[in-house]
Amino acid sequence: MDNIDKMKKNKKIYLDYAATTPVDEHVVKAMLPYFSEEFGNTMSIYGLGQKAKLVLEKSREAVANLIGAKPKEIIFTGSATESNNMVLKGVSGGHIIISAIEHPCIMETAEYLERKGINKITRIKVDNNGLVDPEEVKKAITEETVLVSVIHASNEIGTIQNIKEIGKICKEKKVLFHTDASQSFGKIQIDVKKMNIDLLTASSHKIYGPKGAACLYIKEGVKIEPLLHGGGQEGGLRSSTVNIPAIVGFAKACEIAQKEMKSESQRLTKLRDKLIKNVLKIEKVYLTGHPTKRLSNSASFRFDHIEGESLAIQLDLNGVAVSTGSARSSAKLEPSYVLLAIGLTHGQAHGSIRISLGRQTTEKDVDYLIKVLPDIVKKLRDISPFK
Amino acid sequence: MDNIDKMKKNKKIYLDYAATTPVDEHVVKAMLPYFSEEFGNTMSIYGLGQKAKLVLEKSREAVANLIGAKPKEIIFTGSATESNNMVLKGVSGGHIIISAIEHPCIMETAEYLERKGINKITRIKVDNNGLVDPEEVKKAITEETVLVSVIHASNEIGTIQNIKEIGKICKEKKVLFHTDASQSFGKIQIDVKKMNIDLLTASSHKIYGPKGAACLYIKEGVKIEPLLHGGGQEGGLRSSTVNIPAIVGFAKACEIAQKEMKSESQRLTKLRDKLIKNVLKIEKVYLTGHPTKRLSNSASFRFDHIEGESLAIQLDLNGVAVSTGSARSSAKLEPSYVLLAIGLTHGQAHGSIRISLGRQTTEKDVDYLIKVLPDIVKKLRDISPFK
Repeated sequence: MDNIDKMKKNKKIYLDYAATTPVDEHVVKAMLPYFSEEFGNTMSIYGLGQKAKLVLEKSREAVANLIGAKPKEIIFTGSATESNNMVLKGVSGGHIIISAIEHPCIMETAEYLERKGINKITRIKVDNNGLVDPEEVKKAITEETVLVSVIHASNEIGTIQNIKEIGKICKEKKVLFHTDASQSFGKIQIDVKKMNIDLLTASSHKIYGPKGAACLYIKEGVKIEPLLHGGGQEGGLRSSTVNIPAIVGFAKACEIAQKEMKSESQRLTKLRDKLIKNVLKIEKVYLTGHPTKRLSNSASFRFDHIEGESLAIQLDLNGVAVSTGSARSSAKLEPSYVLLAIGLTHGQAHGSIRISLGRQTTEKDVDYLIKVLPDIVKKLRDISPFK
Repeated sequence: MDNIDKMKKNKKIYLDYAATTPVDEHVVKAMLPYFSEEFGNTMSIYGLGQKAKLVLEKSREAVANLIGAKPKEIIFTGSATESNNMVLKGVSGGHIIISAIEHPCIMETAEYLERKGINKITRIKVDNNGLVDPEEVKKAITEETVLVSVIHASNEIGTIQNIKEIGKICKEKKVLFHTDASQSFGKIQIDVKKMNIDLLTASSHKIYGPKGAACLYIKEGVKIEPLLHGGGQEGGLRSSTVNIPAIVGFAKACEIAQKEMKSESQRLTKLRDKLIKNVLKIEKVYLTGHPTKRLSNSASFRFDHIEGESLAIQLDLNGVAVSTGSARSSAKLEPSYVLLAIGLTHGQAHGSIRISLGRQTTEKDVDYLIKVLPDIVKKLRDISPFK
């Protein structure tokens, strides 16, 4: 048995870090005492509750630090989906501008609000690389506009938007600016002040923290309605018993991300570029998303004459986990609206996969993928009815 | 140093299980593999994702079993607050009937919907024991009524409502019936079919499961709008990356609760009754809530001439954690609306505490409380300006 056979047999190579990440062992360790020992409710007046409250505020600092925010500008939510729903539903009426390539939790919320007649929605087109032209945002803003929401880095194609410029336009026009930074937070340096961001969504489970924790940065002075009403936690903005173990884990993940961001980004960029260079050697394979303005850990491709689903399944059988686009698209048969938005035909969009690298990805993993991919592609094309 | 001094010094006695519970060690153990090893996203098509999906469906069965529901009638949410918000906001317009002693997440959501002009709200009064008269619910139902929501067991005074009878009335009147069973789930036998329940909220962290998991039972055929729009998880009803570790923990907590419910309820009833009997020996102390129709783990009292806050703080200094009412009230200075609803004056309501027992409570703990309480009460009354 040679090395590749061994790998195939014994080790799964996970290359879908954009969908979710394994929780870092230091994060799990940080969380553990808060399950059964320091389990107090932050709203309680006795010692155990007050200790929980202190831990909560310390965690808030760690998250705020990562994006140049004040701790009081961070509220904890349960997920990025919740943060994004909260923003769109929380501005209550008026005109909302989003890009055509937002995450489903922005797209579907916008559709819901439009259907209910609560908001008017404008969806800004993107170019073939997935870039929003800030000038298009400027043109779309009317007197009724209450919010612009543009995803920082695409979850499907990795393209990074010119958030600072869009933020500047919103600032000038006095319109709230939100960015869903679920994919970029902890990977790219973000400064909410310098980047003119009023509202920002970030998630724990995309940066080796636990699921069940996320946050919404709300710039001091900005007012939006809560999505969860109740006991008045998080300054009345997000009721629900505070999930201390998950928040402690999120904060720890932020601390680690801050420390490792620069070196890890450099390491992953190298691996990603090696991957892209070699995958593009295969005939009729094309990179999707921006060639340079893209997440350091993300590579997405389309393959002529191949179904992305079949490719992902064959790779899985060969020990490699990749996605056909967003995790959501994988469960549906419709082509990805993100890929259609960058100009792909239905057929082209169906032939796409997303490969996202992470902390446990080694050069060996990338080499293995480069080695097995051409044969799998050839085999699938040989039996393809789409040729 | 005698035993009591030792106890005071070394061990904190937690008697606020109604606020939150420590996670059971078996639950933590069950969760652990899902953080860093089996961390797949349920929406992914590769093996790791499909394994997560299987675990999700197995967990759904464990939760459904506890209330006589079908697995497909359970959707997982992030908290009871979220489930309750989802129900009230999800019926979209019309007349809603709630009791006057719902949890803040029902009360505040109802107030929000009323304020926004989305729903008309009727709040049904309760008697001095905190009981809703089902006939009052019947009288309040109009042709516009879309939902009745009554808390199963009060989080503040432990009173258990006649849910079956209220459910029967709603069934006859063809109005949706929801009960917030956050405090009763896993402690009292619940059968959603026999009890005529259309929608039921249950929480993990009240039954020794982790925070970040809860559920909403939605009877087959009942339609409500999602609160979180997005990737279409949970049959499109609750989008968000599925929090597998928390859900696995919730399911494990349900299994343990089901096994231990009967014996634990008997054990706690004995301890609770011993506690009540002895606390009532102190002068001018009164039980709040129903004398018999109450949660087996819950005892709540009011003390003449004493602030509940001061009493809770003194008890904390003596090593015992109790609440002044709902966790929410503890952080506020307003008297509890639940206590006002059962006919207490503002002064009386301010002199109240809630003691809630749980799996780690021993007879020794109760004996210790019985021993220290009279002196604390005496000391506080001696310095009280309210006499």
